[in-house]
Amino acid sequence: MPDEVDRSVRTVHVPLGERAYDILIGHGLIESAGERLAQAFPGRRFGIVTDMEVAQAQLPRLTSALQAAGIGHEVVVVPAGEASKSLDRLGDVLDGLLSARLERGDLVVALGGGVIGDLAGFAAAITRRGMDFVQMPTSLLAQVDSSVGGKTGINAPQGKNLIGAFHQPRLVLADLDALETLPPRQFAAGYAEIVKYGLIDDEGFFFWLEENRANIFSGGPARAEAIARACAAKTRFVLADEKETGVRALLNLGHTFGHALEKVTGYSDRLLHGEGVAIGMVLAHRFSARLGLAPSQDGVRITRHLEAAGLPTEIGQIAGDKLPVEPMMDAIAQDKKVVRGKLTFILTRGIGQAFVERNVDPEAVRAFLEEMSA
Amino acid sequence: MPDEVDRSVRTVHVPLGERAYDILIGHGLIESAGERLAQAFPGRRFGIVTDMEVAQAQLPRLTSALQAAGIGHEVVVVPAGEASKSLDRLGDVLDGLLSARLERGDLVVALGGGVIGDLAGFAAAITRRGMDFVQMPTSLLAQVDSSVGGKTGINAPQGKNLIGAFHQPRLVLADLDALETLPPRQFAAGYAEIVKYGLIDDEGFFFWLEENRANIFSGGPARAEAIARACAAKTRFVLADEKETGVRALLNLGHTFGHALEKVTGYSDRLLHGEGVAIGMVLAHRFSARLGLAPSQDGVRITRHLEAAGLPTEIGQIAGDKLPVEPMMDAIAQDKKVVRGKLTFILTRGIGQAFVERNVDPEAVRAFLEEMSA
Repeated sequence: MPDEVDRSVRTVHVPLGERAYDILIGHGLIESAGERLAQAFPGRRFGIVTDMEVAQAQLPRLTSALQAAGIGHEVVVVPAGEASKSLDRLGDVLDGLLSARLERGDLVVALGGGVIGDLAGFAAAITRRGMDFVQMPTSLLAQVDSSVGGKTGINAPQGKNLIGAFHQPRLVLADLDALETLPPRQFAAGYAEIVKYGLIDDEGFFFWLEENRANIFSGGPARAEAIARACAAKTRFVLADEKETGVRALLNLGHTFGHALEKVTGYSDRLLHGEGVAIGMVLAHRFSARLGLAPSQDGVRITRHLEAAGLPTEIGQIAGDKLPVEPMMDAIAQDKKVVRGKLTFILTRGIGQAFVERNVDPEAVRAFLEEMSA
Repeated sequence: MPDEVDRSVRTVHVPLGERAYDILIGHGLIESAGERLAQAFPGRRFGIVTDMEVAQAQLPRLTSALQAAGIGHEVVVVPAGEASKSLDRLGDVLDGLLSARLERGDLVVALGGGVIGDLAGFAAAITRRGMDFVQMPTSLLAQVDSSVGGKTGINAPQGKNLIGAFHQPRLVLADLDALETLPPRQFAAGYAEIVKYGLIDDEGFFFWLEENRANIFSGGPARAEAIARACAAKTRFVLADEKETGVRALLNLGHTFGHALEKVTGYSDRLLHGEGVAIGMVLAHRFSARLGLAPSQDGVRITRHLEAAGLPTEIGQIAGDKLPVEPMMDAIAQDKKVVRGKLTFILTRGIGQAFVERNVDPEAVRAFLEEMSA
């Protein structure tokens, strides 16, 4: 941490009518959570859902803060990792929340990364047919991605995030201090989602990231700005299209390929979600170039930036055995973004010019993937 | 079935804005479902969720109808009974729907009683973060109760319906023919929910039921009218208060006691849901009389009507061992209708005069239950 810690708090407002909420981004937000929650939700109890790793790194700070503020709370801990986005672990969380006798007016706190946000948010959505919840994202990925949009859920054997609900948090506290204990590989993976917002429709933001990457990675002031800009960008898309029937699909840039890669690597440490997105974004640009839609030098420029951030950009860089194409195609076909048998992909005309293409030929994808996996 | 079958179809419209839908009540609705669904949802596929008993009695009629209309469909069958409202069976249904590769625009059909409506509706709510669904209620209880309100969900070890979502069907087909194969005990249990609407706020409807009970039970024209009036009554409450923050709570008349009785009898054949509601409504009236709120002769009149319908009206009439009071109190305390430690009950000032009382003394309930269980 720098000697002079910036105590200012940035706020991104997500104006969703009666479900509007704020994302606060700053240092010390977990330490000051007691006061803030007592003020925002007087008299409520909190069911904190977290994982074993985050429990070690962050939980004592939060429970002390709640205790000091006289706020009743219970804790449910699940194993760390994507495997916890399962029906079994969901059952554990529901059991923990119900056994703690949380009432309908009480709140769930999701303290952790994207897995915990998705799992705890979904548990909140379906406990007593809907409890309020507060997100305290502790990974960069969760701060920029899960904080906005209200998507919660778990994985199914048939694919990622196939079971879930739209459920907006009441408040998001994105504590920059939590990122200090984040492994560099996790930080880089989260950074991929930030880059995505530049690639979708904001060339200027991508150029800014090229300039400020070092400062963002070293924990300088550009870090908070990058997070806030990514949250604000996602908010724009979510507002335009809360239930993901149209432009919000652009947020899936890099995700159809990325999810397929995550699936064939078993949602394991072989490939983090953000790493899959990084490779997926490069693939989306290359595939678009292949179709004559985008200049190939944009793909090269993106590849260079992601590589400098320590991210993989090719399928061949994934550790372990060579990945077979057929299971990737199956995963793509099972993806949520399939409409009446046609493949839908987010393609691009260049940096900042992504678009939804609903008529992608599965055979062209297969041929492209075979080449990229060779 | 009477020789002259009434082919008219009654429609109750549930005007919930963009989630508005119709409940159709009539004979032959399953046989004619193919045409109707093809027209309402062109090009969609259907995942039918049903139980083993209903599958035997009703499924062939439905699959033939869909086949004849050229509608693609898959079937997921779960065991019959309340025990299927579990996380494990939910997992089976989700697995079935996802393995059938139903897409986001496809629909789930809940073919069965209340258990199937709750389970399949909840599965629809959380598959791909929300699929449309059609209800085909085959029990009287489901036709009058689950058809309106959008409540879906499963049970938890801590209590009934503690896990779930609000999810409105797109269409309800309440086929009167399905009731012909319903065991008399099940029919009577469903009738208890019809009586409830009279008791809540429509004395005239209760008197009409007293007059027409025989015709309703024998399958005369009063049956469709009773179902339609009950659906319309529930619609009124749901409209007034879609998310159950206020008057909708009146629909729980008899349900706090009823759920507690169901819980201590293990959600088993010892006590059907509607039977629990019947006893619960009598208890609510007696408890209200005990508190000096309602005339005790109203409780007597209700008891007489429910008895004539073949329903239990006292805790002592439940088969098996005497039921202990303490677990009932635990169940009541864990009930969704607890707010900040105070017990909320639906009490009454007489037939058609139910109201929400949020300050019920737990000790008064305990003493009353001990007396009623003696």
